[in-house]
Amino acid sequence: MAEDSLKPGCVLCRATDEDIIVQNDKWRIIFVDDVHYPGFCRVIWKKHIREMTDLSLEDRQVLMQAVWHVETALRKVMQPDKINIASLGNQVSHLHWHIIPRFNDDVHFPDPIWAAAKRSAKADRLDSRKSLLPELRKTIIALCQNSY
Amino acid sequence: MAEDSLKPGCVLCRATDEDIIVQNDKWRIIFVDDVHYPGFCRVIWKKHIREMTDLSLEDRQVLMQAVWHVETALRKVMQPDKINIASLGNQVSHLHWHIIPRFNDDVHFPDPIWAAAKRSAKADRLDSRKSLLPELRKTIIALCQNSY
Repeated sequence: MAEDSLKPGCVLCRATDEDIIVQNDKWRIIFVDDVHYPGFCRVIWKKHIREMTDLSLEDRQVLMQAVWHVETALRKVMQPDKINIASLGNQVSHLHWHIIPRFNDDVHFPDPIWAAAKRSAKADRLDSRKSLLPELRKTIIALCQNSY
Repeated sequence: MAEDSLKPGCVLCRATDEDIIVQNDKWRIIFVDDVHYPGFCRVIWKKHIREMTDLSLEDRQVLMQAVWHVETALRKVMQPDKINIASLGNQVSHLHWHIIPRFNDDVHFPDPIWAAAKRSAKADRLDSRKSLLPELRKTIIALCQNSY
């Protein structure tokens, strides 16, 4: 990535501790390390861009295609009750999308994961979901290999 | 909308109290009545669809184009500090997108609007933002008239 498309001090421009599932020259897909949400993925645009409409229409479609691949893989492998997708960036204004598999027994359901927790976690359910992560990783990689 | 593409009892299939900005045969864009977020818009797919990947790729692009038009209009008219975009649907699993103009003095910033409030509202700032809604409505309509 050319230096002039990165921003000094931005934690998403030069992240070093990410679990990268797959990447190309435009974006990377990572697992988010969230104890309550195994399978939570993030798609990060590599250049330091603030909003979707700062991208060309073509690049928006490239980025959203990666988001749809993650959603497709999450549905196939984890069969969640709902998919949540969000691009917020109030804390780190470097364009990224959250794709979160939601289950009706997760700690916030049916509220967004950013609301107050409604119940305690069920360890056996979380363990069961964590066991799917290798298959999820393989499925995301396979989908992305078939399109840009 | 054909009856077989609607779901009995779904509040988004047969909403009657919405402030519709613009619509076509596939989607409608409405103002969300949220006292803390004047300019908060929702793009609702008309058929009762659950997830983005239940739509064809072409229809996903049609829906996201409406989302980008709202983002473009919000940035032009309201000049927010950040745009937040989300498709959640845990409570109403009928496909819709939230597009929210965020300001660093709003009640939740920099947290998502679903988190606990961090401060009280500034009435003069809210009044100033509300005064932009007619211009926002016109701008969204104009953008949508130039593309499907």
